[in-house]
Amino acid sequence: MNTMYNILLELPFFQGLCHEDITSILEKITLDFKDLGENQVIAQKGSEANQLIFVMEGRIKKDSSTLNGKLIMEEIIRPPYVIEPQALFGWNTTLFSTYSTFSPTKLLVVSKKALRNELFNYEVFKLNFLNYICYQNQKLNQQQWNLEDQTIEERLLSVLWNLSDRNSIQQTIRVKMTILAQFMSSTRLNISRILNEWNDLHLVKLSRQEIIIPNPKKLLMYKEQIKREREK
Amino acid sequence: MNTMYNILLELPFFQGLCHEDITSILEKITLDFKDLGENQVIAQKGSEANQLIFVMEGRIKKDSSTLNGKLIMEEIIRPPYVIEPQALFGWNTTLFSTYSTFSPTKLLVVSKKALRNELFNYEVFKLNFLNYICYQNQKLNQQQWNLEDQTIEERLLSVLWNLSDRNSIQQTIRVKMTILAQFMSSTRLNISRILNEWNDLHLVKLSRQEIIIPNPKKLLMYKEQIKREREK
Repeated sequence: MNTMYNILLELPFFQGLCHEDITSILEKITLDFKDLGENQVIAQKGSEANQLIFVMEGRIKKDSSTLNGKLIMEEIIRPPYVIEPQALFGWNTTLFSTYSTFSPTKLLVVSKKALRNELFNYEVFKLNFLNYICYQNQKLNQQQWNLEDQTIEERLLSVLWNLSDRNSIQQTIRVKMTILAQFMSSTRLNISRILNEWNDLHLVKLSRQEIIIPNPKKLLMYKEQIKREREK
Repeated sequence: MNTMYNILLELPFFQGLCHEDITSILEKITLDFKDLGENQVIAQKGSEANQLIFVMEGRIKKDSSTLNGKLIMEEIIRPPYVIEPQALFGWNTTLFSTYSTFSPTKLLVVSKKALRNELFNYEVFKLNFLNYICYQNQKLNQQQWNLEDQTIEERLLSVLWNLSDRNSIQQTIRVKMTILAQFMSSTRLNISRILNEWNDLHLVKLSRQEIIIPNPKKLLMYKEQIKREREK
């Protein structure tokens, strides 16, 4: 029981629950633990979100794309992680991205019914859930209002960072350079020059129609660095 | 009591509550009704969000600005409306915009404490709240991934619409044309030409460093119209 207690406490939304609450949760709801091998689909984009899926161990792959499908982003995600809790409620309760296993993975799956009827009765759990969704909301809103006078390099860094999952440890972006230039209202030459500079700085690895970002946090640090230099 | 019942049922989050629940809410929590004259501050940007403020009657003014303060948007908002419920939880629990009365206004104010300890005990209220926050989240995320190949005119329409409050019935945007051109990675001339066309179509009224949008929904319809024409 102690092990289970520690496992749950590491997951999003369970933090801060007392021993008594966890015991009571374990008595009331069936926690469905799953072990998956690599390259298994966990949940498909567009499918109904009717479960809370926690990633406990391993690495998963998240595939997202722009609405017209011309830019595809593949991210490697580290645990602890929970798959699109914001898709469980609201107007559109389908998943935005596709999730699959990148390495052998341990999941905990809780039904939406158990979430609504049991987990939300725990004040701490409910607040953790609300805090998460509201924080996401605030972050997205801030990003939207962040219309700064940026150079094209800074804008490209912003777009890539804004689309990133915060648990992403590696990204692969598939897009034609001309499309990326169109998105950025710039020229192919400009975008290509910037990406090649980043390649030389080991911030990205370029290959045919693919931009690999081995460490998204490093790209954010670089963005802050050039912003500081510009403001000097 | 019947009047109060009907009043509450018109407000966000109260829809769908049964008569019995409303009666029980009215018995348990003190609902603070406020009548304000025009040009009174309701809540200031950056102040702590510790109340759920419902606008029941009248028109309010919402003032927002981009993070560097170079674009300011003033919106006239119609009821029923609730002021930034997403600011009550999460990492940053301060308001993003400033709200004041534009005409005599009726408010209903509920403390965060009453929300947490009482209102959230009503399943329907809790679900309405969650649905609202999750929907906002999905909408903002979709907007972010909506990197379509758009003309500069469509992109400007998107930016303005994305920053709009859905309850907005009139907007005034204060920004220098050169700044707007920088935000859009375009030229002053291009932006000025587009805005003047919109002015001729009565979609906006232009005056010195001010763009007035008398009907934001009309601008959205125009966006859809030019998109359809482009795709023909």
